[in-house]
Amino acid sequence: MIASESELIGRYFRGLGAARADVVLGIGNDAALLRVPPDTELVLTTDALVEGVHFLPGAPARSLGHRSLAVNLSDIAAMGASPAWALLALNLPDADAQWLQPFAAGFGDLARAHGVALVGGNVSRGPLSITVQLAGVAPPGQAMRRSGAAGGEGLYVSGTLGDAAAGLKYLRAQLRTAPEAGAYLQRRFEYPTPRLELGLGLRGLASACIDVSDGLYADLQRLLLASDCGAVIDLERLPVSWALRAALGEASWQQALGGGEDYELCFTAPQRHGEAIAALAERTGTPVTRIGSIERGAGIELKMNNAVMQFSPLAFDHFRR
Amino acid sequence: MIASESELIGRYFRGLGAARADVVLGIGNDAALLRVPPDTELVLTTDALVEGVHFLPGAPARSLGHRSLAVNLSDIAAMGASPAWALLALNLPDADAQWLQPFAAGFGDLARAHGVALVGGNVSRGPLSITVQLAGVAPPGQAMRRSGAAGGEGLYVSGTLGDAAAGLKYLRAQLRTAPEAGAYLQRRFEYPTPRLELGLGLRGLASACIDVSDGLYADLQRLLLASDCGAVIDLERLPVSWALRAALGEASWQQALGGGEDYELCFTAPQRHGEAIAALAERTGTPVTRIGSIERGAGIELKMNNAVMQFSPLAFDHFRR
Repeated sequence: MIASESELIGRYFRGLGAARADVVLGIGNDAALLRVPPDTELVLTTDALVEGVHFLPGAPARSLGHRSLAVNLSDIAAMGASPAWALLALNLPDADAQWLQPFAAGFGDLARAHGVALVGGNVSRGPLSITVQLAGVAPPGQAMRRSGAAGGEGLYVSGTLGDAAAGLKYLRAQLRTAPEAGAYLQRRFEYPTPRLELGLGLRGLASACIDVSDGLYADLQRLLLASDCGAVIDLERLPVSWALRAALGEASWQQALGGGEDYELCFTAPQRHGEAIAALAERTGTPVTRIGSIERGAGIELKMNNAVMQFSPLAFDHFRR
Repeated sequence: MIASESELIGRYFRGLGAARADVVLGIGNDAALLRVPPDTELVLTTDALVEGVHFLPGAPARSLGHRSLAVNLSDIAAMGASPAWALLALNLPDADAQWLQPFAAGFGDLARAHGVALVGGNVSRGPLSITVQLAGVAPPGQAMRRSGAAGGEGLYVSGTLGDAAAGLKYLRAQLRTAPEAGAYLQRRFEYPTPRLELGLGLRGLASACIDVSDGLYADLQRLLLASDCGAVIDLERLPVSWALRAALGEASWQQALGGGEDYELCFTAPQRHGEAIAALAERTGTPVTRIGSIERGAGIELKMNNAVMQFSPLAFDHFRR
């Protein structure tokens, strides 16, 4: 027999994530009641994963639990905010314990790791899709934005780029490589690492920040548009994993520039903060690479050993694919 | 050509709803930044509409815009809270202006009417479903809950019951009635009225409250379970519209008890608040009917002119249908 919605929520989602003293009333009510710390701004974001668009049919449920929260945590990280409370809206074709249990485990593990409590949920029958809303807090006026970059500043990214999109290609058998490299790329797609500690530390150092969800080229364009300036990327500096290099060789930079779903941070900072940024990267154990500079003007110029390169972005946009 | 996600959000959703001075950073960023009024608790809820589950394929987009927000406003009303900021996650099969324009209008009109700003959105390609997250505020410790009802108290509902479910049956040609009655019932399904003013006024009067989304019988059971008590409903007092009466006659009470999607409030209150509740109903222009009493014990007893009646709820649960 199929369980009812409230049974499902009670069995799999009640108490998921961190226990937080500021949750007055949690999951299983008409709405959650929360105490927002005084002298903070509330930070709200939502992101969805849809079967066949953001993941393949039959994708591992644990990965989906992790990713559905990770993509929202990444938005909070890009603001330099602290995550606190999540809501989960699940459209499920049927109430399958074999799916729900690992899904909840993947979601819950990542939530606990970042101090997030799941405080509300909704389960509907429907084609599989997962929508998460995440609320967090930041000190007033200190959250980072896409705007604020200025000519002469450094341009940085965290981690390595292009792995997740290559991992998805590997999963779809559109990319052949050695099993170790394939497994690494697949894992980067299935279990992205939201850069929360880095985001928090960048407050006061970075002038603008965005998370790389649709590919560096597309997301940097958004940052530049919001900041009304341009950028030069030194392609030979783009951070690329050993696995992407093994799989794609010289073509790695195109994947690093165009591939989405990495959930790394792209940010800008005045030159004088270079050392503090290096120290922050060291302290948080997050690789950070300076990949270029912000310029007056508009658009992205690509250079490889001082030669200008051309790139046609395969826009990673759900309404253009 | 199909527009990109950010073009869609910019064209249809930027600036939707009320302009609020507490929105520091709104739609079109990684996350929204909001100033929560001091000395309040944050109230968070989410609810989704899925094609084929909550609405019929081809349902009017304006109605879906209205309903997707209304079902969330109803949760906020049931807590006695004030709504403030909404996030919208839309899974759309394609970017159709003929659909998006009236959808945004239906959402925006209701949002403005209740002072709600749309502060974030996500649009993905996928089978049509609409998930809204709504945030509001309430004075600390004053939000209503499902728990708190006690033996001897009065049991109340707002508006009339059973209309929306009958309207859906009419739309599906499962119910025949006169065109005027059919149109009335259909409208009650397509454009539910969230009872926000009533909810606000009930703070301090009601001992427990829930919104009627899955049918009075099912939702009252949840309230009774949370409050650890039982109830007697006088079926002849159930508020039924002229249209439901015209369509179903003597069988109206079963529809009023079992039909979902009404988004009325069901609440309990001590006897001494009877007059204040009547005055509140008058002041807010919201019909309120006392339909029975809270009893010690458990479960729901149904009486019709003092005879005990039986009812087999056709549970309005998305995982049992």
